[in-house]
Amino acid sequence: MGTDEQSSLIRNGTSIPGTHPGDRYIRHVASSDLPLREIAPGRFVAELAEPSGLLGKVWVRLRRALIGYPLRTAEAAHQRIGKAKALAVFSSDALSSTAYATEEILRVLILAGTAAYAFVVPIGAAIVALLAIVIFSYRQTIHAYPHGGGTYIVTKDNLGTGPALLAAAALLSDYVLTVAVSISAGVAAITSAFPSLYPYRVELAVTAILLLTVINLRGVRESATIFMLPTYAFIICVGALILLGLASLVGIGPTPHPVRHEVPAPSSPLTLFLILRAFASGSTALTGVEAIADGVPAFKEPQAENARTTLLAMGLILGFLFSGITLLSYHFHLVPSERETIVSQLARTLVDDSPFYYVVQAATALILFLAANTAFADFPRLAYFLARDRFLPRQFRFQGDRLAFSTGIVTLGLFTSLLVVIRQASVSALIPLYAVGVFTAFTLSQSSMVVHWWRSANGSLRHLSWHSLVINGIGAIATGVVTVVVVVTKFVHGAWMVVLLIPALIGMMLAIHRHYVSVAEQLRVTTDEVRRRLRFGLRRSVAIVPIASLNRASLTALAYARSIADDVVAVHVATEPESGEVLQQRWREAGLTIPLIIVESPYRELLGPLVAVIEKLHREKGAPLVTVVIPEFVTAHWWERLLHTQTAWRLRRALVQIPDLAITMVPYQLEE
Amino acid sequence: MGTDEQSSLIRNGTSIPGTHPGDRYIRHVASSDLPLREIAPGRFVAELAEPSGLLGKVWVRLRRALIGYPLRTAEAAHQRIGKAKALAVFSSDALSSTAYATEEILRVLILAGTAAYAFVVPIGAAIVALLAIVIFSYRQTIHAYPHGGGTYIVTKDNLGTGPALLAAAALLSDYVLTVAVSISAGVAAITSAFPSLYPYRVELAVTAILLLTVINLRGVRESATIFMLPTYAFIICVGALILLGLASLVGIGPTPHPVRHEVPAPSSPLTLFLILRAFASGSTALTGVEAIADGVPAFKEPQAENARTTLLAMGLILGFLFSGITLLSYHFHLVPSERETIVSQLARTLVDDSPFYYVVQAATALILFLAANTAFADFPRLAYFLARDRFLPRQFRFQGDRLAFSTGIVTLGLFTSLLVVIRQASVSALIPLYAVGVFTAFTLSQSSMVVHWWRSANGSLRHLSWHSLVINGIGAIATGVVTVVVVVTKFVHGAWMVVLLIPALIGMMLAIHRHYVSVAEQLRVTTDEVRRRLRFGLRRSVAIVPIASLNRASLTALAYARSIADDVVAVHVATEPESGEVLQQRWREAGLTIPLIIVESPYRELLGPLVAVIEKLHREKGAPLVTVVIPEFVTAHWWERLLHTQTAWRLRRALVQIPDLAITMVPYQLEE
Repeated sequence: MGTDEQSSLIRNGTSIPGTHPGDRYIRHVASSDLPLREIAPGRFVAELAEPSGLLGKVWVRLRRALIGYPLRTAEAAHQRIGKAKALAVFSSDALSSTAYATEEILRVLILAGTAAYAFVVPIGAAIVALLAIVIFSYRQTIHAYPHGGGTYIVTKDNLGTGPALLAAAALLSDYVLTVAVSISAGVAAITSAFPSLYPYRVELAVTAILLLTVINLRGVRESATIFMLPTYAFIICVGALILLGLASLVGIGPTPHPVRHEVPAPSSPLTLFLILRAFASGSTALTGVEAIADGVPAFKEPQAENARTTLLAMGLILGFLFSGITLLSYHFHLVPSERETIVSQLARTLVDDSPFYYVVQAATALILFLAANTAFADFPRLAYFLARDRFLPRQFRFQGDRLAFSTGIVTLGLFTSLLVVIRQASVSALIPLYAVGVFTAFTLSQSSMVVHWWRSANGSLRHLSWHSLVINGIGAIATGVVTVVVVVTKFVHGAWMVVLLIPALIGMMLAIHRHYVSVAEQLRVTTDEVRRRLRFGLRRSVAIVPIASLNRASLTALAYARSIADDVVAVHVATEPESGEVLQQRWREAGLTIPLIIVESPYRELLGPLVAVIEKLHREKGAPLVTVVIPEFVTAHWWERLLHTQTAWRLRRALVQIPDLAITMVPYQLEE
Repeated sequence: MGTDEQSSLIRNGTSIPGTHPGDRYIRHVASSDLPLREIAPGRFVAELAEPSGLLGKVWVRLRRALIGYPLRTAEAAHQRIGKAKALAVFSSDALSSTAYATEEILRVLILAGTAAYAFVVPIGAAIVALLAIVIFSYRQTIHAYPHGGGTYIVTKDNLGTGPALLAAAALLSDYVLTVAVSISAGVAAITSAFPSLYPYRVELAVTAILLLTVINLRGVRESATIFMLPTYAFIICVGALILLGLASLVGIGPTPHPVRHEVPAPSSPLTLFLILRAFASGSTALTGVEAIADGVPAFKEPQAENARTTLLAMGLILGFLFSGITLLSYHFHLVPSERETIVSQLARTLVDDSPFYYVVQAATALILFLAANTAFADFPRLAYFLARDRFLPRQFRFQGDRLAFSTGIVTLGLFTSLLVVIRQASVSALIPLYAVGVFTAFTLSQSSMVVHWWRSANGSLRHLSWHSLVINGIGAIATGVVTVVVVVTKFVHGAWMVVLLIPALIGMMLAIHRHYVSVAEQLRVTTDEVRRRLRFGLRRSVAIVPIASLNRASLTALAYARSIADDVVAVHVATEPESGEVLQQRWREAGLTIPLIIVESPYRELLGPLVAVIEKLHREKGAPLVTVVIPEFVTAHWWERLLHTQTAWRLRRALVQIPDLAITMVPYQLEE
């Protein structure tokens, strides 16, 4: 803030956190005593104002109950965390995807009948291999970007603005889908345990999103401890389940309780395309893997080392959970169903309706909600970076009462709710849209790293880190191929929406950027120009006062006009035949010397003729700056405004287009 | 117009016809050449402007295609009509009610089984008697009010404002119901003939209302000839049908084709209450009878005489049609059905599926739509009178491009559509709400006439027109009793809504009146005061300029402030810690002498601290009038406005509450 490039009028948007929703109570603040503390001559600090009006008080109470007490900008806090906590904070998104990835593979394969089930094992193995490649690639990223290697920043650094915007658009759509898919899967975990809640799944999902929105507006302090419970509970529960299953597989575990859902009739031949589509669906297991690389600055020293270890640990756990669930689903021939998740089926097979079953479902739902919560941190942060670089509206830079990026949080909440309602909180209906953004971002991030290593060598092959280049190169190629597979196999099922959305988003960001740059260009002034323009003081000036009749409001405006200008003209538009005469009569009676111009308006138009006569006078007077002084009265209550036609405001809107015209409103306060 | 009492700011609403919807194109007019024709020095006539922008052009084309070419105020035309045409113009509402009145009686009686049918004849007779009383009463009204005896005006004259508002509220609700019931009955006439359209009845009804709204916005010239076709077609068709039926009754007419709808099982005993409820439903036959008395000024000379004759003729025709339909329905034992109207059943009974049947249905539908159309003339006119007397918002006084009262027309269209949708275009669902307003208005009108005759006698019994007094007295008592019957018998079926709505409307009108009177009081100035206030010319003044940074927009504002005030102060609110220093640095570099006040805002609030510091300076400077000069930039396209935060406008809204503060916007036009 405070530099020319961003500014417009009085701080036209650059970080005015929390003012938007508060506007209503500002009106009340206006007449209350806001404590201004003088800290030096001409320098004050504004303390928090308590509104005086009833409406304002209620609004502030409500806001504080919901969002919390406002924080000072200086109160922004940062916390460094150890590996165990970091695993909890940054892995919920990645780990939670095991709750639905296997299911989505099966859902595609089953279309070709149960015989196709055999392919789940090789597909699972391919995904685990892909996971290993991505994990090793990101370990390189952490190495190169110890201060945080977010995809947008890494891509901008290495590939330039265009690819960075592609990455940003992909990520933005990805975050919306992370929330939608995670919440829907979390609700599915609940409705699997309590089938009577199934009809209310959309309501449950929207409520959960609303809750996350409010929690995030409150500004989640990075209290990593809270994150540990769901993440470790999920790892332990599902890990235990897999161990039980494997024991049962070799004949030493519990007797399985068969769970049977109806197998749908095969509707598709078993083609390579179908297998690739199953793979594409399952590749959602990798979503969220990048989180640790983005979050390096939050690690304790040695940051990069700790982050790399945590990433490896996360990869191993994710690989174990995903392969375990996949293997056991195949072994027990579980059939995907809209009504019960595969994880729920697996748990029921192994531990039946025991309390442990409910613990597994609860832990699954919790980690999924936590995963959605990470998107509520990531989306607003990316939007902030984009707004800072002038690719998104500056409103995304506002920090709310609690220092959270309110605009981004609310935007994410809205879009996600919409998506969940449209897709009826069904994970399988959302999956085709997912993964496109994720793998686009992976590909760009890995490609950027390839360029990074190449550039770091400064053209000398001897200094080139071949090892890193190859790892990231393999990562880039592998994720690039998967991106193509995902787009092609899921295109008709919904991926087309994302394929259309991403260029639209990029176009929008470019248009926004063009606008902000053009505004900054137009507003920039040199110190010389400032000196030149402000050399003159009081000057002869012209004022035009539109009036309807001679009343206290128009009189105040006329008096004001006389006080600032030596050439005052009053203008009256007669929308009714006799009103001109009536006014002229009063003018004469009062012996007024201010010239009065009357415009008859046979078509009863008011604004058009008024603007025309003002333009005409403006031209004729030839003054450098003409002031239009508009009398306006202010009603005591909002509803009373409906009884007047806000002509003053509408006139202002019309006049604002005319250059070299200052528009003055002279308010006249009405009492009740 | 033009008198103090109505005025606010520049013509704050008093007759600014058609400007509201045109605002969007005014922006474009602003920079075009509106032809101002000078007719005397300082006196112009504004011709119709053609907008220059594309958006404006499209809007104007669309508006003219829909509403028509604008008319000059002077083009308002009046037409005097003869008795035959007057009957057509003023009777459609009353006559068309025969299309549903009998049906609604039967619908109530059938609840007690077919045996209860016998009561339809005495109930019909009672309604005809009531009709005779009301007709004779209104003939008296015409006598006393040869210039038009609208209920609101007559009641205000004789009973005072309170009862007049009761009448107005009753009539407003009545007009909404006239449209809803007539349109629904008209659609029922169509769906009776074409049962396949029955599922689309709500859509048909809403389309019809929309059509009537547009037609009325076009400003229906009183082309009585157009009205003649449906009215006379209906009279002739239904008259012929009744004659056929009577012939058949005495054995000389056609053989009836029995039409049988299923008789519902009796669900209620035959009580006096049920009979009264049937009577109340049938009394809707009288709705619209007052129209001729309201419209006396449209008659040819001798006006009163012609109106009285026409009213009598109308009463006879209405009586004949209603008793005919009622008698024949009883004779043929027609059973009311949601799917087919009684008139349709009667016509099919007598003429089967012949072309004449379709003519009857068409004529019925047409006269019903015409009846709805009369409410589209009556509601806006009453709203205009109420707005003129300051009981409704002044927007109801606007005359649109075609000199129609646009606000009233659109309001009626909206409320009616809403009602039709809620009640699913079912006449029987709407009927319980109807009649309450009608009979309340009848009672007030007749009571007013009693008072009128009493007052006319000036306290001398010798001059008292006993004959008139008795007729209106009987009218008042009869309609008063019917009002009570209607309210009591239909209360639970929906009349309670109207019973609650009417006092709410009255309360609203009184509140509006209080507001306008209070505004007029506060704005009134004497000639002396005008002279005193305008004695002073240029004065020393103070300007405060809020700025975010030193840019071209804020520079323009600073230069303007210097040109109108000798004491200029710049104010900056630092919502980010460093922005104050950055600005102060630039200030020093440019060598500016204008004092700069910096307010640090640790809670990132902008408006609150800005308003507080402006208030503080305002107090300290002690100047009679302080100007806040707000730099504002104007974007070239509307969508660009979304990228800025409109702080200028929000600041203005906060400042408007502070007395003795003029607010100047200095626009800076941005280019694309």
